[in-house]
Amino acid sequence: MIGDNLAHAAAATLERVRSEAPLVHCITNNVVPNFTANALLAAGAAPAMVDIVGESGMFAEIASALLVNLGTPTPEQRGAILEAVEGASRAGTPWVLDPVAIGALPIRTHLAQQLAKRRPTVIRGNPSELLALAGSGTGGRGVDATDSPDAAAAAVDALALRTEAVIAASGEVDLITDGTTRIRVHGGSVLLTKVTGGGCALGSIIGAFVAARGEASVLAATAAAHAFYSVAAERAASESGGPGSFSVRFLDALASVTGEDVAAAGLLSTEPASA
Amino acid sequence: MIGDNLAHAAAATLERVRSEAPLVHCITNNVVPNFTANALLAAGAAPAMVDIVGESGMFAEIASALLVNLGTPTPEQRGAILEAVEGASRAGTPWVLDPVAIGALPIRTHLAQQLAKRRPTVIRGNPSELLALAGSGTGGRGVDATDSPDAAAAAVDALALRTEAVIAASGEVDLITDGTTRIRVHGGSVLLTKVTGGGCALGSIIGAFVAARGEASVLAATAAAHAFYSVAAERAASESGGPGSFSVRFLDALASVTGEDVAAAGLLSTEPASA
Amino acid sequence: MIGDNLAHAAAATLERVRSEAPLVHCITNNVVPNFTANALLAAGAAPAMVDIVGESGMFAEIASALLVNLGTPTPEQRGAILEAVEGASRAGTPWVLDPVAIGALPIRTHLAQQLAKRRPTVIRGNPSELLALAGSGTGGRGVDATDSPDAAAAAVDALALRTEAVIAASGEVDLITDGTTRIRVHGGSVLLTKVTGGGCALGSIIGAFVAARGEASVLAATAAAHAFYSVAAERAASESGGPGSFSVRFLDALASVTGEDVAAAGLLSTEPASA
Repeated sequence: MIGDNLAHAAAATLERVRSEAPLVHCITNNVVPNFTANALLAAGAAPAMVDIVGESGMFAEIASALLVNLGTPTPEQRGAILEAVEGASRAGTPWVLDPVAIGALPIRTHLAQQLAKRRPTVIRGNPSELLALAGSGTGGRGVDATDSPDAAAAAVDALALRTEAVIAASGEVDLITDGTTRIRVHGGSVLLTKVTGGGCALGSIIGAFVAARGEASVLAATAAAHAFYSVAAERAASESGGPGSFSVRFLDALASVTGEDVAAAGLLSTEPASA
Repeated sequence: MIGDNLAHAAAATLERVRSEAPLVHCITNNVVPNFTANALLAAGAAPAMVDIVGESGMFAEIASALLVNLGTPTPEQRGAILEAVEGASRAGTPWVLDPVAIGALPIRTHLAQQLAKRRPTVIRGNPSELLALAGSGTGGRGVDATDSPDAAAAAVDALALRTEAVIAASGEVDLITDGTTRIRVHGGSVLLTKVTGGGCALGSIIGAFVAARGEASVLAATAAAHAFYSVAAERAASESGGPGSFSVRFLDALASVTGEDVAAAGLLSTEPASA
Repeated sequence: MIGDNLAHAAAATLERVRSEAPLVHCITNNVVPNFTANALLAAGAAPAMVDIVGESGMFAEIASALLVNLGTPTPEQRGAILEAVEGASRAGTPWVLDPVAIGALPIRTHLAQQLAKRRPTVIRGNPSELLALAGSGTGGRGVDATDSPDAAAAAVDALALRTEAVIAASGEVDLITDGTTRIRVHGGSVLLTKVTGGGCALGSIIGAFVAARGEASVLAATAAAHAFYSVAAERAASESGGPGSFSVRFLDALASVTGEDVAAAGLLSTEPASA
């Protein structure tokens, strides 16, 4: 699929998110649930933060998509995550894994390795986190990436083939791969790295797009979510006086960016994977 | 009491919130504590989030009001809730129950049923949640209401009589009842449904208004909180470019709306309950 | 050091925060992690919220500074705090203790007393909290201070000598002492008290400044953090229509205030301690 067709598919997926309002079940860290829920609402999806044992499994069965973010994995959340992934598997609910800050920190690293074997639909992270999951690299410094998507490209292609997941590496240019085809997403704004939860909320938006992908592939839907996010970030950055006002304008932009805007931005390009 | 008198009583209650700065003890879900605390501060009340076992009981005794919100009820919070409700009962502290997303989710549904028997002062929720508590309806889709306040009117009247609580059902027109008299609150903004925690923070504002109600009834004070909230939402919506800026302007409006503004808005009407 | 020199040292410390991007490990309450992380990012530091047992100890060893905030101390966080303080001690990581709302609440009060013996680098709080830690006073009403920094001055001087920590008492004029010398920080905005987490986020900024203090003393770096915060608050207040927009503008201002701005504001004065 050439970039232009991809862009039109992205536009269509955004419109389906708006019309279907997919219910995105989020188990996420304690820094970002508010921003994540507001991002989903702004985009037109419906958030639900259900992260306790005894409820998360059945909820993952009825949700349109599930996000598993490992940012602050308490024992209760770890139990709820395993239960939710079971539920998602039973019901065929697509799910997104965000292995926040793995590499240096042992509990989440071990959990991420386990979860990567449970057939996540998409794994997103910064290149350092993805390299840690791939078994190379040393992990970042907390949530900071110390590697670029390009440096990680071959490793994430291989990770995609091993896990059978689409892998999305965030960076100045995002790189998304299913191990066979790579899509690059240009654009965005550096201000997004100055707002906590920018990447975490993107994980939930990916969930919404994958849920509403219709006939599109998971690869294309994941790229669409990134393109939508980048267009919104550019619009917000152009109206902002700093990271505080950027964050506010970004939520406004997630609500106002249209499929047409995404298609017109032309941020997507494809190439063969290295594998 | 006719609508006009109700509006003046609402204005007076807001002024008392501002002068008395009631201390509202909140046990709430992990998505909204920040927004809830900021809403209370903006309105002129004092928030305190005390949600651990060993502290919540004694704190509920000294607080002016208690909010129990079941949005993300961890085991620790469930213990803290039971302890806090004991403390509130001992001290006569008014308390508000918000049974978020009950119906489909078993742990919170069971807990809400228990708590409804412990004489909450006010129970607030969307119609689907209140129908689930009343034993009819099937619950919403997460926090989404799938029923309207009117469809739930007779059931919430009956729930008010059974629990001896004032029941507040949020919707395009809010419906508040003590089982004998209903008050409807008009106005507000649909943007409030695009900001996570809009309803959750309202629960805390109800707590502040009930604590500062003076000679007014709990029914009138609960309606006053809704009217104040609606006036602030309308003001914020008129100045907003989307859900992000609405949320910011809404906090500004909670700080700037006066009793006179609430009285002038004339959002309140009464009618007999069905029971 | 006279006020003018202090102001220049403050400017230099801010510039070092911006160039070094110290990694601030935060264990904080569930109301403010988002605001805290965004404040650190805006100031130029790097936040990491690592608050589970099994990860917090090793992370405190690699972090540039550690913040321990007792606002909502769950059992898991209490374990993570003790582990992190051990790690900080092993590695010589500077750490800041914020004993939120101690006095009336037993679990956090006991924990704060324990922690005060573990050589925190800085202890910050409102005067009521610090008096409670000093063993005098009765604690505030939740997070509200019921005492002024001046009333607490002699007690906090003595607390500094006993704990060997720099003590920072927030108020209309902030008072910072090492038991020998006091620095007062003027300026700021009352709007900061209308935003939840204003004090909590300051604790994290102190951590960043102490980590990047270079040749400056901990006393001077702590005062520098306060001066930076006050200048940003004044700038934000001048552009705000209420607490919601103030909060947004404050994050913008934390990103835009320069060392020169801090030096020019001249908010710092020194005096001998009473001890």
